Amino acid sequence: MKSQQRRFFKLIKYKEALSRMEKAIPNRTLEDEKIKSIKALRRVLAENVTAKKALPDHDFAAMDGYAIKTQNIQNASDSNPIKLSIIGELFPPDHPTEASIGEFEAIYVACGAPIPNGADAVIKVEFTRREKEGIIIMKQIEKNRNIAQTGEDVKKNEIVLSKGHIMRSQDIGLLVALNREFVRVIRKPKIAIISVGDELTEPFGIPSNKTVNNNAYIISSLIEYFNAEPIIMGIAKDNMNTIEQMVKSGLDKADIVITIAGCSVGLKDYVPDVLGRLGKPGIIFHGVSISAGKVSGVAVAQEKPIIMLPGHVGSTVATFYLLVTPILNMLLGLSFNDLLPKIRGILDGKVTAKPAIDLILPVKVYNQLGKYHVVPLKKHLSILKSLADANGYAFVPAGTEKNKNDTIEVKIFGGLEFFNITS
Amino acid sequence: MKSQQRRFFKLIKYKEALSRMEKAIPNRTLEDEKIKSIKALRRVLAENVTAKKALPDHDFAAMDGYAIKTQNIQNASDSNPIKLSIIGELFPPDHPTEASIGEFEAIYVACGAPIPNGADAVIKVEFTRREKEGIIIMKQIEKNRNIAQTGEDVKKNEIVLSKGHIMRSQDIGLLVALNREFVRVIRKPKIAIISVGDELTEPFGIPSNKTVNNNAYIISSLIEYFNAEPIIMGIAKDNMNTIEQMVKSGLDKADIVITIAGCSVGLKDYVPDVLGRLGKPGIIFHGVSISAGKVSGVAVAQEKPIIMLPGHVGSTVATFYLLVTPILNMLLGLSFNDLLPKIRGILDGKVTAKPAIDLILPVKVYNQLGKYHVVPLKKHLSILKSLADANGYAFVPAGTEKNKNDTIEVKIFGGLEFFNITS
Repeated sequence: MKSQQRRFFKLIKYKEALSRMEKAIPNRTLEDEKIKSIKALRRVLAENVTAKKALPDHDFAAMDGYAIKTQNIQNASDSNPIKLSIIGELFPPDHPTEASIGEFEAIYVACGAPIPNGADAVIKVEFTRREKEGIIIMKQIEKNRNIAQTGEDVKKNEIVLSKGHIMRSQDIGLLVALNREFVRVIRKPKIAIISVGDELTEPFGIPSNKTVNNNAYIISSLIEYFNAEPIIMGIAKDNMNTIEQMVKSGLDKADIVITIAGCSVGLKDYVPDVLGRLGKPGIIFHGVSISAGKVSGVAVAQEKPIIMLPGHVGSTVATFYLLVTPILNMLLGLSFNDLLPKIRGILDGKVTAKPAIDLILPVKVYNQLGKYHVVPLKKHLSILKSLADANGYAFVPAGTEKNKNDTIEVKIFGGLEFFNITS
Repeated sequence: MKSQQRRFFKLIKYKEALSRMEKAIPNRTLEDEKIKSIKALRRVLAENVTAKKALPDHDFAAMDGYAIKTQNIQNASDSNPIKLSIIGELFPPDHPTEASIGEFEAIYVACGAPIPNGADAVIKVEFTRREKEGIIIMKQIEKNRNIAQTGEDVKKNEIVLSKGHIMRSQDIGLLVALNREFVRVIRKPKIAIISVGDELTEPFGIPSNKTVNNNAYIISSLIEYFNAEPIIMGIAKDNMNTIEQMVKSGLDKADIVITIAGCSVGLKDYVPDVLGRLGKPGIIFHGVSISAGKVSGVAVAQEKPIIMLPGHVGSTVATFYLLVTPILNMLLGLSFNDLLPKIRGILDGKVTAKPAIDLILPVKVYNQLGKYHVVPLKKHLSILKSLADANGYAFVPAGTEKNKNDTIEVKIFGGLEFFNITS
């Protein structure tokens, strides 16, 4: 009878794993693509956006009021009311205007209206009193008061948004205001997902004794969430040739290949063998001193990273965050980092990381009276429900013990989680 | 000459505005719809999801090892090694299995393999030594060790996800594992956006002197971001009939109607007049003691809310968060609340709210050494760039003064912002 353990691991620290990845994976940002600015939400900018015009592009009234000459109302007060004649009215669409005022004249300007020539401030309606053909002013105001000035928001040729910025709604507004119909963003990285295992079956078929390939759908959804494009390749049987064909096809179609399961010490865990024969540099590490995620690893072939995620869902998801997101972000032109939001909270129970193995602990964060509380979740091997209960994880270094009420740092799975955890 | 101010405001407090809205707007959750579970990211659950099966649905090996009877290896130790014969091997696809072990027998089980009859624990490969047809065991283990047990993740008939939950990737995995191909979610609220003003022009046309209708695109993008469906109705001229036609059409097509601009005191600010003649209950308030956002208001007609947002972009966006998101979330079956993530941070500069007017202050939050710092942004009327610089706002109550280094609470615009602000 053959040996019952296919391979032995020499575990490396997670930091070492990151550093090997950073060295072995070609550091490059993907090509950019031109898309409609109004569709750019969540995308990463591939260019510095320069204002081709000033905002606002002309002076206008920032309030409903009267455009006046400040020199005419110097020392105006209750005891020294000054009368101006009203000679017209201006509204926003009247821009550009030829209107002008002379001494002791005023023009009514609606908010947004252009400023008539000769005027240097706008006095609010409530500081004036109507009287026949004119207004009485009882308050002095300074020059430029209530005038929105050309370029006060954005100056012409100013860089308003920088390369690498993740686009939000307000940024889209800025592009639209600057008349930028299209914008260059980094194309979405494509990530091929290969699930490995004879025991697997696709979901939603006729109920069977087989295990549903749900991990591929969690990972696929995470990939979409993190601004990339998943390609679900399907299930590879526990067979070297099948796995190899699928990995090669994944390398053709995608920027990153992820395998799920088939990378542990079992007799049929063939993924590392396959990755070992795809060419240089091959496997750059396999085995990380983290739990969950110990049997994860990374190979590089055809200059593309292939990431072995373990098959237990808790490990699959943990190593997605730990190993896949830094590469994903690098391809998007961001840093080689997971970029997950970090918070500090108060631990609700005791946490112990074994010697020599860093603990990747799923936690549930909640907010009470403005403080984050962190509940460590039961970490057993089949933790789909715990994962659904979790909204982040804590990285507890090997050999560390944390007690109830200690402060602990948590990485939140993503911004979406905050809608559930803040109160 | 007619009066230059169309109307006078009796400002109400923001809390009073919220309370009037809550009373006047019919409290209802929108209908649900059936969608594919794998497409449910960010959607709001309309049902409690009950597990129709246990997870896992059979006992299996949680490690590569040997399935044994614990009674056979009681008191096993280095000085008392116990030998078992290996009579076979099992892999995950072998489920369901008829295999069984007798006294002092063991079966190799790969991680995920079913447990043979008669076995009550799995001993890890590394705690055993191979020897001819058998293994030597030098360690005693307890019952059920390394066996993932039926229902240990999810029990049959357990509620795994509750109505009102916002779906994340891990929840999708749970649905897939439970063989739930479809799930019921609240349909996305439809929100019609009407921009008002003779001065406006649609973006990206031939450059003109007109003002680009960019506010509609910011609001539209925010609506998408908050899980709803925007309907951009276009620009209504400053004309009562045009505005009325467009509002009526919006009421037919959408669950909420938003008007942008045309609701201040100016001569051509007709929106409130139009909303006043659409039937009961009509305008429930107009004028809130907040800045930005003072001239905002809400009407109800045909049992649907119509929200008047002011036209200055800073006010438009502030009142979107303050007035629109609570209604939006109510329609989604969530609370009557903006649900924005809240953080507390250290103020980087002095902030003063005038007496009688609450200050809605755009801020830029950044993270330094694990602490949030809050930079108050210059708040002038044309603040598109400030808005793009901002990632949240602080609500500073009327008459309050806050100094540098004081703690201040900030509502973050949305989860996406956290990817930019945490370090």
